[in-house]
Amino acid sequence: MEEIMKKIAVIGAGSWGTVLASLLADNGHSVTLYGNHQEVLDEIINFHTNKRYLAATFKTNERIAVTIDLKAAVQGQDMLLLVIPTKAIRSVGASIATILAQNNAQPIIVSATKGIEPGSKKRVSQIIAEEIYPAQTDKIAIISGPSHAEGVAQKDLTALSVASESTAVAELVQETFSNDYLRLYTTNDVIGVEVGGATKNVIALGAGLLYGKGFGDNAKAALMTRGLAEMTRLGVRLGAQPLTFSGLSGIGDLIVTCTSTNSRNWRAGRELAKGKGLEQTLSDMGMVVEGVLTAKALHELSQELNLEMPISAAIYRFLYEDSSVDAEIARMMGRENKPELEF
Amino acid sequence: MEEIMKKIAVIGAGSWGTVLASLLADNGHSVTLYGNHQEVLDEIINFHTNKRYLAATFKTNERIAVTIDLKAAVQGQDMLLLVIPTKAIRSVGASIATILAQNNAQPIIVSATKGIEPGSKKRVSQIIAEEIYPAQTDKIAIISGPSHAEGVAQKDLTALSVASESTAVAELVQETFSNDYLRLYTTNDVIGVEVGGATKNVIALGAGLLYGKGFGDNAKAALMTRGLAEMTRLGVRLGAQPLTFSGLSGIGDLIVTCTSTNSRNWRAGRELAKGKGLEQTLSDMGMVVEGVLTAKALHELSQELNLEMPISAAIYRFLYEDSSVDAEIARMMGRENKPELEF
Repeated sequence: MEEIMKKIAVIGAGSWGTVLASLLADNGHSVTLYGNHQEVLDEIINFHTNKRYLAATFKTNERIAVTIDLKAAVQGQDMLLLVIPTKAIRSVGASIATILAQNNAQPIIVSATKGIEPGSKKRVSQIIAEEIYPAQTDKIAIISGPSHAEGVAQKDLTALSVASESTAVAELVQETFSNDYLRLYTTNDVIGVEVGGATKNVIALGAGLLYGKGFGDNAKAALMTRGLAEMTRLGVRLGAQPLTFSGLSGIGDLIVTCTSTNSRNWRAGRELAKGKGLEQTLSDMGMVVEGVLTAKALHELSQELNLEMPISAAIYRFLYEDSSVDAEIARMMGRENKPELEF
Repeated sequence: MEEIMKKIAVIGAGSWGTVLASLLADNGHSVTLYGNHQEVLDEIINFHTNKRYLAATFKTNERIAVTIDLKAAVQGQDMLLLVIPTKAIRSVGASIATILAQNNAQPIIVSATKGIEPGSKKRVSQIIAEEIYPAQTDKIAIISGPSHAEGVAQKDLTALSVASESTAVAELVQETFSNDYLRLYTTNDVIGVEVGGATKNVIALGAGLLYGKGFGDNAKAALMTRGLAEMTRLGVRLGAQPLTFSGLSGIGDLIVTCTSTNSRNWRAGRELAKGKGLEQTLSDMGMVVEGVLTAKALHELSQELNLEMPISAAIYRFLYEDSSVDAEIARMMGRENKPELEF
């Protein structure tokens, strides 16, 4: 393993971007953090905190450089790490592509963003490929797995998957990020890693619904396991390896998202189960609840592909067709008996 | 689907046996419950409760017959359901074999017991086959999955796997047990279902250790996911299908066992992490903590098969070789970088 200092730009100064930027600087790399709020960047430079997104006790590595200028961030780097919302990937990707073309540069691009683009139903790596590297998809890597940013900030032991079509690129990312509390495992199954990361939010919403309705540990485990089965079924249809869903980016991330009260999707489900309306719940939370939109995307995808996804379908009907949790449970428990594995 | 009333003996009147006997009677079957404590059986007949093992609020179905006479229980049944400790399976199996031979009877035998026999390292279905049905292993079925007995008693939604070499037998068990809060999924992978059920207790002990040491949700999810990977690696070597471990008897059961404070293996790990000795912990708990013995069996198996099971090995060294959690974590995080999937 080579241990070479790399020049890395982290694009996105939210909780996960800030924690990863600091971790990469701790690992000895030269890190520039790009954000679009000057006051957040000023706080990081002056006080080494990011209280808008993280606990005040978390101190960032003092060697991080910050910038609000995307061009300054992107130029001259070996690696770009994108940690921005799915909906921003295409436009930021296009801007990055222009900057790279001007410099004739081709850094590795790592994405920590999880989601599926509404409308196109494309995965994040597909959008990055379209906008930046149409002919070099092997320069793209995805990191995903069970990782609350706050946990990594506190040096909780964390394990992630890193997926790339190129094993060499995956191994380079693995080396770059690994330290004594963060461990990465490589895979070539980009599709599986991304489908897992996007779909788990819908299942977490369902776990919150069951909890809010008073169901217990058996029901939660059943929902997660059968949810995993339908995530896997979808992934396989889209070209993923089924066993990827047994890994960190599949069941691992699902565990964190369904069993931690920090998960916003889980909390939204719990509030909805109490009879609070969808709009009210979303406005009270004041944050994007990705599972709500992903449930719609999964509904459309499963119709298009003629694929059975009974849990996602139930959550879709609950969110968008005025069905009730009780009616959906009765429907689900009354389904024809099945074998466990059908992909 | 045929809906035919069956004559069933449930062997074992602990919490899970009592709840399943009552459920089967609720489903319309004729049920005899065998136990070896007359006072427990008397309470069930007279008061329809089993307060030794279950909350007083749980009322058993009033049509259950009870007996302390194994011969009376076993004779004339279509199905026997074994819900007794692993260590009793061989001797009770031998007694059942004698009774069945006298009556020239061949009921289906379903086991809800999870474990590996110390010494022989055989699975429960292998012991049943040796003792009762050496030439008819297709009459044996295993049920397993995320199912706290107390949860099923409260009609929490529950999903189980039922495994048999015979699809027809698995489907018969599926029909017999299914109702509006219990759903079963069939599989032919008996080995996978049993290996999952036995090994998850070791991982749960590890989850308790991490919790007791102050680690958080990321670490728990990482442990469970990488624990699943090594359970799968062992199962595959023993002849199981890897995807079985993504199912109810694998990750499903692991979720319930690692994330519920009711799990005795998890609780034992938590106490051990606080520095309480092994003997003291076990004596304070006053119950068998299966993971402690299974950790030894897994250690021996992994040595025999020359199989990497780093989490089980770490727990083994902690329990039996005076290693510390901190030392084992440092060792684990310092391992060579790996790809995610290696079976």
